[in-house]
Amino acid sequence: MQTEPGFVTPTVWAALRYWCAKLSFLHFREDLSMKSDIEIAQEAKMKPITEIAASLGLADEDVIPYGRYKAKINHRLIHKASKQGKMVLVTAISPTPAGEGKTTTSVGLADAMNALGKKTMLCLREPSLGPVFGVKGGAAGGGYAQVVPMEDINLHFTGDLHAIGTANNLLAAMIDNSIQQGNPLNIDPRRITWKRCMDMNDRQLRFIVDGLGGKVNGTPREDGFDITVASEVMAIFCLATSISDLKERLSKIVCAYTYEGKPVTAGDIGAAGAMTALLKDALDPNLVQTLENNPAIIHGGPFANIAHGCNSVMATKLSLSLADYVITEAGFGADLGAEKFLDIKCRYAGIAPSACVLVATVRALKSHGGVAKADLNQPNLEAVKAGASNLVRHIDNLKNGFGLPVVVAINAFPTDTPEEQAYVEQVCAEQGVPCVLSEVFAKGGEGGKALAEKVLEVMEDRPIQYVYPLEMPLKQKVEAIAKKIYRADGVNFSAAASKTLAELTELGYGDLPVCIAKTQYSFSDNAKLTGAPTGFTMEVREVRLAAGAGFVVVICGNIMTMPGLPKKPAAVNIDVDAEGKITGLF
Amino acid sequence: MQTEPGFVTPTVWAALRYWCAKLSFLHFREDLSMKSDIEIAQEAKMKPITEIAASLGLADEDVIPYGRYKAKINHRLIHKASKQGKMVLVTAISPTPAGEGKTTTSVGLADAMNALGKKTMLCLREPSLGPVFGVKGGAAGGGYAQVVPMEDINLHFTGDLHAIGTANNLLAAMIDNSIQQGNPLNIDPRRITWKRCMDMNDRQLRFIVDGLGGKVNGTPREDGFDITVASEVMAIFCLATSISDLKERLSKIVCAYTYEGKPVTAGDIGAAGAMTALLKDALDPNLVQTLENNPAIIHGGPFANIAHGCNSVMATKLSLSLADYVITEAGFGADLGAEKFLDIKCRYAGIAPSACVLVATVRALKSHGGVAKADLNQPNLEAVKAGASNLVRHIDNLKNGFGLPVVVAINAFPTDTPEEQAYVEQVCAEQGVPCVLSEVFAKGGEGGKALAEKVLEVMEDRPIQYVYPLEMPLKQKVEAIAKKIYRADGVNFSAAASKTLAELTELGYGDLPVCIAKTQYSFSDNAKLTGAPTGFTMEVREVRLAAGAGFVVVICGNIMTMPGLPKKPAAVNIDVDAEGKITGLF
Repeated sequence: MQTEPGFVTPTVWAALRYWCAKLSFLHFREDLSMKSDIEIAQEAKMKPITEIAASLGLADEDVIPYGRYKAKINHRLIHKASKQGKMVLVTAISPTPAGEGKTTTSVGLADAMNALGKKTMLCLREPSLGPVFGVKGGAAGGGYAQVVPMEDINLHFTGDLHAIGTANNLLAAMIDNSIQQGNPLNIDPRRITWKRCMDMNDRQLRFIVDGLGGKVNGTPREDGFDITVASEVMAIFCLATSISDLKERLSKIVCAYTYEGKPVTAGDIGAAGAMTALLKDALDPNLVQTLENNPAIIHGGPFANIAHGCNSVMATKLSLSLADYVITEAGFGADLGAEKFLDIKCRYAGIAPSACVLVATVRALKSHGGVAKADLNQPNLEAVKAGASNLVRHIDNLKNGFGLPVVVAINAFPTDTPEEQAYVEQVCAEQGVPCVLSEVFAKGGEGGKALAEKVLEVMEDRPIQYVYPLEMPLKQKVEAIAKKIYRADGVNFSAAASKTLAELTELGYGDLPVCIAKTQYSFSDNAKLTGAPTGFTMEVREVRLAAGAGFVVVICGNIMTMPGLPKKPAAVNIDVDAEGKITGLF
Repeated sequence: MQTEPGFVTPTVWAALRYWCAKLSFLHFREDLSMKSDIEIAQEAKMKPITEIAASLGLADEDVIPYGRYKAKINHRLIHKASKQGKMVLVTAISPTPAGEGKTTTSVGLADAMNALGKKTMLCLREPSLGPVFGVKGGAAGGGYAQVVPMEDINLHFTGDLHAIGTANNLLAAMIDNSIQQGNPLNIDPRRITWKRCMDMNDRQLRFIVDGLGGKVNGTPREDGFDITVASEVMAIFCLATSISDLKERLSKIVCAYTYEGKPVTAGDIGAAGAMTALLKDALDPNLVQTLENNPAIIHGGPFANIAHGCNSVMATKLSLSLADYVITEAGFGADLGAEKFLDIKCRYAGIAPSACVLVATVRALKSHGGVAKADLNQPNLEAVKAGASNLVRHIDNLKNGFGLPVVVAINAFPTDTPEEQAYVEQVCAEQGVPCVLSEVFAKGGEGGKALAEKVLEVMEDRPIQYVYPLEMPLKQKVEAIAKKIYRADGVNFSAAASKTLAELTELGYGDLPVCIAKTQYSFSDNAKLTGAPTGFTMEVREVRLAAGAGFVVVICGNIMTMPGLPKKPAAVNIDVDAEGKITGLF
């Protein structure tokens, strides 16, 4: 472990916390063990969003308020941008049940940068409403590193998800209506690839038969719902650079095939204009603030398996035009999130990060080392050593594969031992990358200053070394990612997948980037192979076209695009008092 | 026809318009035949909504902006109200394909009242998004009597419909999840009465089988979607008087029955708190403005057949506390809309209108007289005479049945002849009610001054003569409405309906008001019996409980709760340009 100025090890810190509590000194430390994220968030002293906007130099007419603490910002500003900040990507090791705290680290890092006097914007994905009622925690950070107002951000926010879901479902209704009204496009009802969606964890809707009830009520066919974030409309929304570009991409969506096997697009259906009308306001990025009153743009949130998993290009470009530094993140581990962020989003948007922060926790490394969730609070240096292989591979991919400056951030937990942390530091040193303890959950920006200083130190503008060139054939692109990033021995394509890839190439989609959907828990396509597995072959089961978003989705294993609720849904604990104060959200 | 000051007959007006156009004088007249509603709306000189709010004496902290021209108003103000304005209900004859213009008349009347120096608030239902893409025109008025920003109001507005749909669907997901997770409540999957909803015209979802795909994907069962406005959550939302009352009503929703036949409520499922959390912001009424910059509150919009069809109680009470006069409306004709407004909404809310405006058009009366839609532009005094029976019966119901002051408003069309209009005036005179020509579509508030003056003249506070007392048995309540309002000879209850009514009475729901769902096109339950049919018997097919809303829905005939799209959906014409300007909305 590198000794950072002001660094205090968790053991020392735990002792300090104990004595501080005894002495009623540094009161918030005691609070920390008592307060939930929502309690901390509800105590935040938010500034009016107009004030946050003014601090960014935004003109009144470009700021559209949604209540007092949320606003949308005119997305057209990205076309007038005179400056271009530097971007830091926050990514993580392969996720584990232990949790890594990528969003928390992003929020804390942005606060720390601002505390150091660097004009920094946080830029995150917006959460899906559905999972809030299931098991998932908020997607607005945690502890003293959160974005607020957290209830609003986690519930309807400014309505973007609803707009996306409605646009998705309008196309679905128009497809079935076209069949009902004489089927002028000759759509094969067995080959409608467009599903309806709902922003809800609702397993009952995964597989349905609709159009029942006789002639006037549609055509019976197999169908199903995805959760809204899994809609291609979300992916398109996050890659669009203007209203015209959005409409163009929407019109390219391939939503069905004719009886002759020809693709039918949303443009053919006549839906693109109305879908764009539904999305035009949503396209403006959302401005909120951190607990420390620093600006945060939260906009767009596609799945990180069947889509590319990062906030909108609009949001990132707007952030880069408004701040000197932008902290952003990508979904799941670096094998999925960072790869897609770099190969898909950055390539399309013509941007590149100046540094990557790779988030890990000692607990997560233990989990990669084979420790069960119940035992993660016990010290276990051997397990950390075993699990560090996961961290090492991610470092290697980012540093040597993509050619980017990397800083490892250990998101500190009270149960970490100094020996465990020291081991992680040693591993990073061997890889030639700095490793910094992040205490932003407990301390907010103050706990992230060491990390911020290290990030500022390593930042460098280098071109991204993409995993594959766009002109490479689709199968080879998949193999390139599988071998270079996942370290698979090779890729087996199912007969169906091979057929689809050949058809898509024939149809002219061969130059699109590929978006691999696989488990996030392993470098491989087998969730149980934690750490840094080798000797495996990726099995590609299915291929789907996302012609509007502009990528080919390559599916390994079973990817769930409609979650279910658990035995005791989080919704059961959520309540509102007479004054409108929400409790039990997390 | 009573001759109102400044009255100009349509024929004279048509001649004037011709000469004005020739002389390039009164330029807007010529425009009128050229411009669509959206064009007129987009040319509106809107005031900032903060300015409209300030003119109502609202404090900044009670106004929550949603963009520059929409705001929500803290609903808690209704509990601090120190004044109570007078209310005018705008209702109509039985709807016809010719259109009546109830909302247009309401908007114009509010503008006219304000032009006369009366502090008046317009209070309307908010439109459903789904029908915008079908055949239906906007629900924001028409011509020079509109509320703005009309695109926003007709699309997502402030997200209320999305919140209602999500709350509805959360309950649905939790019901099926409860069955999936061991079915602790012993719910009979064949007796789930709660449907999912979507704010979309999507016939394909009317009848579905969901929960397919094996054990991990739910329990296969027959199911279906309603359009969001048909959800009981919408009805509840529109009757709630506080967050606590909302939660209480939501918890009372009967959403399923056990295998033993016992009702299962949303409270039993544990969904009421989370549903309330989803609705808490939506509960604040929405403030917008008319083309003439007068305040309008637009909030809530339940179906007028299976629900009560009027804007929220919150909105009405808030309006009454902010203005001296409130113009509001109720869905469909007076047999459905006004009856439910009075017997359900006013009774629950403890309010009463001081006058009713009954809107009719000469064209609609021709339609009631048997004229086909294509021939409505031809003069046909005999048809007007035949169709006037519909108007007469509605006048009688409102005046003698409910005991309210009535003014008939003829919504003028250029094709009306002076003889036809004179006949309508004569009919009204025979019934002892004033009849005024309304030209608000063409002239805005100026065209409604005569109507406003007459309304002010007749206003009087009288107690509502309800059609039935609450303690009357359910069947007798239905018979009371059928005989007194529809003028049926009697009511036949199907065996199923009788059984359900008996069960509901047994379960303690016998004292609820009844909400009759029948065709809006006729006083009877047969859409083809226009005019003032007699000698028919109402056939009650089915009975449903809306325990949360607090009424029993009595269904006569087939009521469609999920519309479909037409051969050429309106969506096909909707577009957005690069600057975000919407075209083709109507």
